[in-house]
Amino acid sequence: MILNKQQIMQAIDAAEVINSMEEGFALFSKGQANIPPFGSLHFNNPPGTVHIKHGHIKGSDNYVVKIASGFYENPKIGIPSSQGLMLLFDSRTGQLKAILLDEAYLTEIRTAAAGALAAKYFAPKNVSCIGIVGTGTQAFHQLNLLKHAVACKDVIVWGRSLESLQSFTSRNELSSFRIKPTLDVTELTANCNLIVTTTPSKSPLIFANRVQPGTHITAVGADGGGKIELEPKLFSKADIVCVDSRDQCFLHGDVAFALKEGLIGPEKVIELGEAAANPALRRKNDREITVVDLTGVAIQDIQIANAVYTSSSSKAPIRIDSKPRD
Amino acid sequence: MILNKQQIMQAIDAAEVINSMEEGFALFSKGQANIPPFGSLHFNNPPGTVHIKHGHIKGSDNYVVKIASGFYENPKIGIPSSQGLMLLFDSRTGQLKAILLDEAYLTEIRTAAAGALAAKYFAPKNVSCIGIVGTGTQAFHQLNLLKHAVACKDVIVWGRSLESLQSFTSRNELSSFRIKPTLDVTELTANCNLIVTTTPSKSPLIFANRVQPGTHITAVGADGGGKIELEPKLFSKADIVCVDSRDQCFLHGDVAFALKEGLIGPEKVIELGEAAANPALRRKNDREITVVDLTGVAIQDIQIANAVYTSSSSKAPIRIDSKPRD
Repeated sequence: MILNKQQIMQAIDAAEVINSMEEGFALFSKGQANIPPFGSLHFNNPPGTVHIKHGHIKGSDNYVVKIASGFYENPKIGIPSSQGLMLLFDSRTGQLKAILLDEAYLTEIRTAAAGALAAKYFAPKNVSCIGIVGTGTQAFHQLNLLKHAVACKDVIVWGRSLESLQSFTSRNELSSFRIKPTLDVTELTANCNLIVTTTPSKSPLIFANRVQPGTHITAVGADGGGKIELEPKLFSKADIVCVDSRDQCFLHGDVAFALKEGLIGPEKVIELGEAAANPALRRKNDREITVVDLTGVAIQDIQIANAVYTSSSSKAPIRIDSKPRD
Repeated sequence: MILNKQQIMQAIDAAEVINSMEEGFALFSKGQANIPPFGSLHFNNPPGTVHIKHGHIKGSDNYVVKIASGFYENPKIGIPSSQGLMLLFDSRTGQLKAILLDEAYLTEIRTAAAGALAAKYFAPKNVSCIGIVGTGTQAFHQLNLLKHAVACKDVIVWGRSLESLQSFTSRNELSSFRIKPTLDVTELTANCNLIVTTTPSKSPLIFANRVQPGTHITAVGADGGGKIELEPKLFSKADIVCVDSRDQCFLHGDVAFALKEGLIGPEKVIELGEAAANPALRRKNDREITVVDLTGVAIQDIQIANAVYTSSSSKAPIRIDSKPRD
């Protein structure tokens, strides 16, 4: 089975993907998945990073390999910066079952679905305003999937240029939101109590002393190569620090910087899959500051590839924008 | 570009592949390739191993990812034990350029091509008899590609059953050889001075005191998971110990056992790419015992994938059996 991006988009249901992430993270944190360290390649001219992730849920029929890349200068020549595909193999024979030519779409969606899950567990009950840091594809998907986790329709988006802000706020799929663009990130931290950071920044954008009590922050951008979005001090200020994978985040995440500087110890850090399995680990009140650091785990690729494969095998595709919460 | 196994077989020329391995290993040993540690998955029921290898030659247009698996019980249900595919990506944009659905054929060929290269550098001038240990697909390809490296036509093949020996000796492609089957490996070591071992054995098959002076041995089977074909003592007896990759063989190869037991030090070990670049490192006379330990390096996958891609793009496919040495 070979599916192209269009077919994959038709096979995906966002609410189901978020549920499958919840199940996947819980399995992962219980040790029910075999997820070896991921491979990577780095290129300098032009700059690009490739991640090769693979894994298998114990006892399941499939193993999954995902190749996903980010070449940030691609848009200059009219090509999306994210590229890639997923492969599904039979874990009893090694035979190839499906090639999902998603051009990184599934990575975008599964990453955004983890963000929605983080909001489900850690966002304050009353979100006054959503803050989106960054204006790229992942920024779009994060906000789009937050429809499934929170009811708030007020958004401040921060970007580095008016053009990128303009192109973000004018997206049709986001027309149910009231989106205010800003070039000043402190306007965002002053007004938003649910913040998602989605940039490849190499210096912190969100500073501890700017974050209001009761705020939840999901940090998606940093996954190695010196990338960092949150001031390390924010992790010592936070009441809850949660990661998708301790192994990965302690090496590649924003939290790695706080650990290296001794600002927090590893014992403070819980996993998203632990919060999935145990509601007592989630936000307890509207004063806590909570941070979820995501680097992307192969369990997500396994879950979403299986969802597409199952949906496409049964020929009952459903649309991405079905079943928003409101 | 998507090519199936048949198309790939038509795009391959064995002599060119051996040359491209020579070039590739030399680049690899000079540090001109970026080859991260490979990923793997292991399955128990049924038993299977998957290797995920990826890499890039500095300055080149492509990066390559290879997924290859061995599920040794597949033949019971009529499926080849080796499975897999290779993927070629543009290293300037991350875009997918080609899917090579080779079902592990390219891995078989590039592995055998490394064996032919090892024979080119280390086989004695007068090979009296070729010894092939094992009767599987890799045993076949090793012998088939030795046509390009040595003129000897006398072969002893060792296997564990008469059926597997029978099926090996009756292969049409090997009809230019005079092949004697044996169930007694000491018959092989007593008569052969060019030996290739190709089994997934977990205990040694070739013992140091059985190996005659002037013999060259290429060990292909052991690549981790407790696999071993050569008695570790053989490495201390050997005059030259060569590996495809120090990093990999020191962890996963036959030589790893000799190092762990302190029978040799790492300084004794040279790389195939060093022998490619410097003929002074090759066999010097007809009394030396030489051992080449191969675990398979992503540089080989890069080279063969590029060869297939180039050949298929130019629409000038040539056959695998072209240009044997005799």
